[in-house]
Amino acid sequence: MPLSSARGRSGGAGSATITDVAEAAGVSRQTVSNVLNAPHRVRAETRERVERAIAELGYHPNRMARSLRASSPGMVGCRILPVSAGTVASIQDRFLHALAEAGQRSDCHVLLFTASESDAPDGAGVSETERSIALWRAGAVRGVVLYDLTHDDPRPRELTVAGVPFVAFGRTAAETDGYSWADVDNEAGTAAAVDHLVAAGHRRIGFLGWPEGSRLGDARARGWLSAMDRHGVLRRSHRLDVRGPDTMAGGTALMTELLNRPEPPTAVVAATDTLAVGALHALPHRGRRPGEDVAVVGFDDTPAAAALGLTSVRQPIEEVGRLIMAELLRLTGASEGEADESGRMRQLLAPELVIRTSSAPGAAEDPVRR
Amino acid sequence: MPLSSARGRSGGAGSATITDVAEAAGVSRQTVSNVLNAPHRVRAETRERVERAIAELGYHPNRMARSLRASSPGMVGCRILPVSAGTVASIQDRFLHALAEAGQRSDCHVLLFTASESDAPDGAGVSETERSIALWRAGAVRGVVLYDLTHDDPRPRELTVAGVPFVAFGRTAAETDGYSWADVDNEAGTAAAVDHLVAAGHRRIGFLGWPEGSRLGDARARGWLSAMDRHGVLRRSHRLDVRGPDTMAGGTALMTELLNRPEPPTAVVAATDTLAVGALHALPHRGRRPGEDVAVVGFDDTPAAAALGLTSVRQPIEEVGRLIMAELLRLTGASEGEADESGRMRQLLAPELVIRTSSAPGAAEDPVRR
Repeated sequence: MPLSSARGRSGGAGSATITDVAEAAGVSRQTVSNVLNAPHRVRAETRERVERAIAELGYHPNRMARSLRASSPGMVGCRILPVSAGTVASIQDRFLHALAEAGQRSDCHVLLFTASESDAPDGAGVSETERSIALWRAGAVRGVVLYDLTHDDPRPRELTVAGVPFVAFGRTAAETDGYSWADVDNEAGTAAAVDHLVAAGHRRIGFLGWPEGSRLGDARARGWLSAMDRHGVLRRSHRLDVRGPDTMAGGTALMTELLNRPEPPTAVVAATDTLAVGALHALPHRGRRPGEDVAVVGFDDTPAAAALGLTSVRQPIEEVGRLIMAELLRLTGASEGEADESGRMRQLLAPELVIRTSSAPGAAEDPVRR
Repeated sequence: MPLSSARGRSGGAGSATITDVAEAAGVSRQTVSNVLNAPHRVRAETRERVERAIAELGYHPNRMARSLRASSPGMVGCRILPVSAGTVASIQDRFLHALAEAGQRSDCHVLLFTASESDAPDGAGVSETERSIALWRAGAVRGVVLYDLTHDDPRPRELTVAGVPFVAFGRTAAETDGYSWADVDNEAGTAAAVDHLVAAGHRRIGFLGWPEGSRLGDARARGWLSAMDRHGVLRRSHRLDVRGPDTMAGGTALMTELLNRPEPPTAVVAATDTLAVGALHALPHRGRRPGEDVAVVGFDDTPAAAALGLTSVRQPIEEVGRLIMAELLRLTGASEGEADESGRMRQLLAPELVIRTSSAPGAAEDPVRR
């Protein structure tokens, strides 16, 4: 095939022009331009049609974008969330560090961006998806990393429609065959906590969780429930499953509520370290010693857990970061690698229980009780 | 001037070749290449000479680098530190979010990278400075952001020698005229804490700090000392200045030590929230109520402080992020802006005391004591 043909207007993927996209989508060139530069001004239906045409034709706003994307060092985009009040610490900085560290080996760096909270196109500001699409079309990133996914998260579908390569930490409730993800088995995490507590002789084991409906919260509740059932101790404890907001004050209130019961628990599994630290604070005020009178287990192994001697479920964040970065590089052609027959990565990783004095007195030095 | 002359080998800054650099530095082309790609293999003295020649001649490894750097969206580099154990939370994610948010308005994003701990060129791995220089030379970033500066931090000098534009959050003890920085008046922060405690009637006010020699730790100690002196209460408290590692266990140990004194303090100012949270934990075990029997003030207003009702000194991180990003864009020609006659930004910002129940019972709801 002569070179000129490959460069022709009707040539292969990647050489389409804005006119081709406008014709394919049945809109004006101005509308295509709006979708690229001010997507919130375009009706959702029109926008999806244009985005599909862009993806199918492999259109890129300019050649520079593609050469940028192909150039070294590469870049993957990742949104940074604002710090949320009331929680002891998030694992966001651990995850960002793991991603940056993993990418560096392949000369690929993490591009941080912020976005407005709502993914609704009519909301104020620019959503994470819009920002991701714009960065990808500008050639600034090879693809993006999603995290903190909800059951019905719209982002995987939106990015798929727009043709933006991405890999998710976590996954939606459905359609998980359509994209690459790495997730941690949250259910196994709280189940391991129950196993540990039952082995230590506990039978009345409470659960401090989030209100139903959240992906992580529900999975962690299921792990407690199924392990309690498996050990035959659920009947004595099923009323000890209490829920509230993910704040330290919330954890203190939930623990206090359980301590007021006629048959209070001798141990609790909390859905987060934040709730667990709140629970630890409730104990001395009721004359209970953490770890000795009431065992407490948290989730996420934040720096606060290590500092307080709190037993906690640790997610293999460094491994998640490595897998996600490697998959993103594979998807975008920067490296060769194996995928299953769907062409997607589906990795469910086991968490690990880190045992400290809050559930096993004498397990290690306990700074709280010095 | 005809176009061909501007492109000539001996043309203006930016058109120098690797041969020009090698001649100017009196080394081989291979040595120049090593400085660019494997700086740890080159003796420090030679490396500095080559770097000076590169900076003076405005040499860039390739033309692509310059066009990349000039392209939009721009990028500024920032190292992400690993999460440190034993602390309740760092302000790193708040700072990174502030930088990303500030840059976004100018279509400039944050490129995250990791580096090995040591800045010694013979240490294992690649130092932050080497990584910054490589990213800048490759055209991946307009410049870099430094933070967590020590008294005798080598990074400002190293980046200046290499010609990499940078702005620092914090500053060295000397040579602060040579580069742009924004810093928070740490001394004013602990002084404000003392003012608040003296106004509440306290006279025996302790200080929980880091061992001498650190920039932040020393400044926060000076603030306590000068305010105590100003209020005429230093004589009764000068022995209440105790130091230890910045961990919660450390804070608990220091507070316990002070409570064992014949004349224990009625209030303490801690150099960090981590130490303050550790101090809070020591109180109930000694029958003291936080805020009522002993007032505690922390520093950094981490999420843990808000969650625990801990009075804390808040740094204006969002403002720091805005100033640093704006200055970096100005320095690299992406925006116009004013600078003082030195051509550098020097901004010292005042922190703010956020008063909660740990020093003012009834100031707000106290989740600890519910």
